[in-house]
Amino acid sequence: MIEAYAEKIRISEIFGPTIQGEGALIGLPTVFVRTGGCDYRCSWCDSLHAVDSRFRADWRAMTAEEIFQEVRRLSDDRPLMVSLSGGNPAIQPLGGLIRLGHSAGYRFALETQGTVCRDWFADLDVLVLSPKPPSSGMETDWEALKACQESAAEGPRTVLKFVVFDAEDYAYARDAAARFPDLPVYLQPGNHTPPDPDEEDGLIDMDGLTRRLHWLVDKVTTDRWFDAHVLPQLHVLLWGNKRGV
Amino acid sequence: MIEAYAEKIRISEIFGPTIQGEGALIGLPTVFVRTGGCDYRCSWCDSLHAVDSRFRADWRAMTAEEIFQEVRRLSDDRPLMVSLSGGNPAIQPLGGLIRLGHSAGYRFALETQGTVCRDWFADLDVLVLSPKPPSSGMETDWEALKACQESAAEGPRTVLKFVVFDAEDYAYARDAAARFPDLPVYLQPGNHTPPDPDEEDGLIDMDGLTRRLHWLVDKVTTDRWFDAHVLPQLHVLLWGNKRGV
Repeated sequence: MIEAYAEKIRISEIFGPTIQGEGALIGLPTVFVRTGGCDYRCSWCDSLHAVDSRFRADWRAMTAEEIFQEVRRLSDDRPLMVSLSGGNPAIQPLGGLIRLGHSAGYRFALETQGTVCRDWFADLDVLVLSPKPPSSGMETDWEALKACQESAAEGPRTVLKFVVFDAEDYAYARDAAARFPDLPVYLQPGNHTPPDPDEEDGLIDMDGLTRRLHWLVDKVTTDRWFDAHVLPQLHVLLWGNKRGV
Repeated sequence: MIEAYAEKIRISEIFGPTIQGEGALIGLPTVFVRTGGCDYRCSWCDSLHAVDSRFRADWRAMTAEEIFQEVRRLSDDRPLMVSLSGGNPAIQPLGGLIRLGHSAGYRFALETQGTVCRDWFADLDVLVLSPKPPSSGMETDWEALKACQESAAEGPRTVLKFVVFDAEDYAYARDAAARFPDLPVYLQPGNHTPPDPDEEDGLIDMDGLTRRLHWLVDKVTTDRWFDAHVLPQLHVLLWGNKRGV
């Protein structure tokens, strides 16, 4: 137990409280704990500052205790939902942080592409599996994704989230959802003007984002995919590509 | 039973499938069944065409059978979430429609200000209680609101939704939520440029809406109100004040 807490976790940034901008928890106040490092390199990654090892110098090795202390400071010791994000947070040892937070009433949602499974997924409150569609340039390992769902078992509320850029991505989401018929589905149009990691506050194409959202709503309703949710990235509508909000 | 189905329901419009733009079901495909008539006259009402009796000639008296036939036609007979909206849909006899829809696998969400309670609230899948804040010019009957929650009992998932225009509305929402500690809370900034009911597609003030959303996120996070959700009216961001989408 003590060893688990002493293990170092690579952190890119901790910020909030702000609202969750995506998926099942959209609109809910949260503190983001963004880990550094990823086993993927999606062509349209919107968090390269937490992915690309050329930003490694900005990452900090922290213990679960240190991270949780910062979460408590930001939230004035008032329990809230903590969003574990990345990069791929599943490649970090987060089990100790979750136990520590739970003992103080905090809750934890983790989002991952589902390539790496952990026993401690079962301790999460929400697990967002977000396999990446063809436009990302990545290949889905369906066995690993299934194993992630199984690691979580009956523990957290588990949902699927898909970023959709085009018709091929949409078809992928449709197929992937059919492989996991029990999981609620959240679709979001991709941000085709992702932030440059060297810039803190890049411009976005609001009209383009709105058009893509229209297109996705049309796809889903025309297709009669009535149990999929279609949502924008609310934080992008609110703050553009600004980081740390 | 037969009598229940034969009772006439005043309908302003039936449209969809589109996505639900507000609250707990945001992003979910739905068909809207909007009833005509309301016991309130909110100063900023965004659905006057379904409220003001000068539009009564546009409303149609339909049986549950006729309404459900239209819902089935619009959804190609594929069960989905039906949104019962108004006006105040609670003043219409909707119990028969809900039974009919359930027998075919459809689900029902109803939104009301909580002034009129019905036994059939318990048959709903989702009940949205949306008491109106001071800026509406209306007075809340707290006893009636409580009775609505009790009518629903353990049946539907019941949530609170508040439209917030200003600090006074925010304080009202805070107080009202404290009276119902078990109910999840959804806050949304009000549309300060609501549609003129004689116009099909009025302009909106997107910058103003975004500013109001920023303000509300700030209020909630500064206040450490960590279990309230803050959401925009997604359909307004997508379609402005256009009707029937």
